Amino acid sequence: MITAKARAVDGPDKPFRAAEIKRRDLDLHDVLIEIKYAGICHSDIHTAHGEWGPVNYPLVPGHEIAGIVAEVGAEVTKYKAGDRVGVGCMVDSCGECENCRKGEEQYCLKGNIQTYAGVDKYGEPTQGGYSTHIVVQEEFVLRIPDSIELDAAAPLLCAGITTYSPLNHWEAGPGKKVAVVGMGGLGHMAVKIAHAMGAEVTVLSQTLNKKEDGLKFGADHYFATSDPETFKKLAGTFDLIINTVSAKIDIDAYFSLLTLDGTLVNVGAPAEPLSVNVFSLIGHRRSFAGSMIGGIRETQEMLNFCAKHNIVPKIEVITADQIDDAYERVLASDVKYRFVIDISTI
Amino acid sequence: MITAKARAVDGPDKPFRAAEIKRRDLDLHDVLIEIKYAGICHSDIHTAHGEWGPVNYPLVPGHEIAGIVAEVGAEVTKYKAGDRVGVGCMVDSCGECENCRKGEEQYCLKGNIQTYAGVDKYGEPTQGGYSTHIVVQEEFVLRIPDSIELDAAAPLLCAGITTYSPLNHWEAGPGKKVAVVGMGGLGHMAVKIAHAMGAEVTVLSQTLNKKEDGLKFGADHYFATSDPETFKKLAGTFDLIINTVSAKIDIDAYFSLLTLDGTLVNVGAPAEPLSVNVFSLIGHRRSFAGSMIGGIRETQEMLNFCAKHNIVPKIEVITADQIDDAYERVLASDVKYRFVIDISTI
Repeated sequence: MITAKARAVDGPDKPFRAAEIKRRDLDLHDVLIEIKYAGICHSDIHTAHGEWGPVNYPLVPGHEIAGIVAEVGAEVTKYKAGDRVGVGCMVDSCGECENCRKGEEQYCLKGNIQTYAGVDKYGEPTQGGYSTHIVVQEEFVLRIPDSIELDAAAPLLCAGITTYSPLNHWEAGPGKKVAVVGMGGLGHMAVKIAHAMGAEVTVLSQTLNKKEDGLKFGADHYFATSDPETFKKLAGTFDLIINTVSAKIDIDAYFSLLTLDGTLVNVGAPAEPLSVNVFSLIGHRRSFAGSMIGGIRETQEMLNFCAKHNIVPKIEVITADQIDDAYERVLASDVKYRFVIDISTI
Repeated sequence: MITAKARAVDGPDKPFRAAEIKRRDLDLHDVLIEIKYAGICHSDIHTAHGEWGPVNYPLVPGHEIAGIVAEVGAEVTKYKAGDRVGVGCMVDSCGECENCRKGEEQYCLKGNIQTYAGVDKYGEPTQGGYSTHIVVQEEFVLRIPDSIELDAAAPLLCAGITTYSPLNHWEAGPGKKVAVVGMGGLGHMAVKIAHAMGAEVTVLSQTLNKKEDGLKFGADHYFATSDPETFKKLAGTFDLIINTVSAKIDIDAYFSLLTLDGTLVNVGAPAEPLSVNVFSLIGHRRSFAGSMIGGIRETQEMLNFCAKHNIVPKIEVITADQIDDAYERVLASDVKYRFVIDISTI
């Protein structure tokens, strides 16, 4: 067993504390990664606070992981010590179901194994990236292109793929009008990626506070959703809307912004059900869809795409002692646009 | 002006009565149709009862119209007296917007002109097919193939196209698993059409009462939704679900029956909003869509498809005096599967 230093939380209302956790000895296809940076995703907060169901505390969150390969198992072929690598939201899946065979492991019919708060095939609870080391089988390890710094690479493993995947699946590109709802960690990545794909990009944010940033990230237009005129002006405009807001919003109002055959994709899920007026969908053959991260192959494709187009998230690097503060700031929307923990400070 | 005999209703709670209505003199591109049969659609009932907003009574419903051309305007080229023709849910649209130019007049950005309860370009209220004659411009008149009897053709103009269009758009066909929710007027057409397109068809009906009919219409499987086992057994099965039920149902339960990238299409709209748990969509990149009738070109394609595949609705022909009774029976789901009024009895 390998001992790793970590930051763990002991309950919904507890602060993070220094901890030691065990990582398994390397199996034939395992990779031991020395973690350099870990992004803070809103999912970490939901899970740490027990808002998404019961959690086995102590919990070490973190599924935006970037680091260096320290050691590999006897039969590992894809990676060697010194390689720059990342790990995202999942570390295993059945590998055999229809969806896994298609490379859509995120939709594994038996359920993929999440990077933290899951149970791995050895029956052990998984623990995430707020930690100095992690052991992951090679098929679930991603290669980080040399041109992307490790700190900036970390958020690509969740925020990047979560937005890239629906933009790719619903074919954002030249001639397509894409709106991004919300300008947080996910939203700012969606803007950069959709712009790089060649789409005409509009940000729909509550206020115009981040307008300057949005335009800098590649948005062509920026509107405040707090202004009712926005919904009148943009009615029937968009081929694709990526909704990154997981709070309960008036989704019918956003459907009205879709063109014929347009699709609104939720990448976040509000805890409460949404109220949907079906007339909004029927009127212009609109679709309301959901999308969850991306498969491993697509995640690698996204990393390569970001390298090619010089896309990185805008991040604020923090020390391990600042995690609790960072959580509070995320909840207050006071982050531009992703916190990344410098794991050397653990 | 042309005087037509009709059956009209004077208010939400009023019975139908004999009436005389005026049809306009033929404009250059108009076609005068002697109506032979008119189907009774659930929309007729909603509208007659004032459930879809205020109505200008007296109202003559009917948008499943089949008849014979009696006379044509001076510049009509598509039709001549004696032709077998039909009219569906719309009689005009702007003809200029993006959607009209695509042949999707049902989604006209200025709003298409509905066959009844609309206002035509002359500023006159439109009146529907429970009537001996109607005047419609040739672009909105459909040709009924010789092999389809006029009484059976009538319901194709709404129930037929409403189900054909989404089956066509979402590519029901060989290798696709399609479920049809509800075995009424729309549902039984969806079964026949999806089967003819080559899909594997499953009916999801409240009970097994109509199972024998369903299998005869071409369904491969038939399940009762009142049996909770149905939802367990069929989880993750269907590429496409056509929901013909416009009552408020537990739509999340039906989403769970979709496979990865599957789509549930509502062709009816419940008056109340539906509650949607977004996790149901995100989990397998599912879509919830709406579809409304079809364009004129596609409606003609549907009629030709039905002729080629010997598809007709199963109907019960009634006299004009039986309309009130028929409405009550539709509301009680006591119809197999569409009432059609013999207009010679008006």
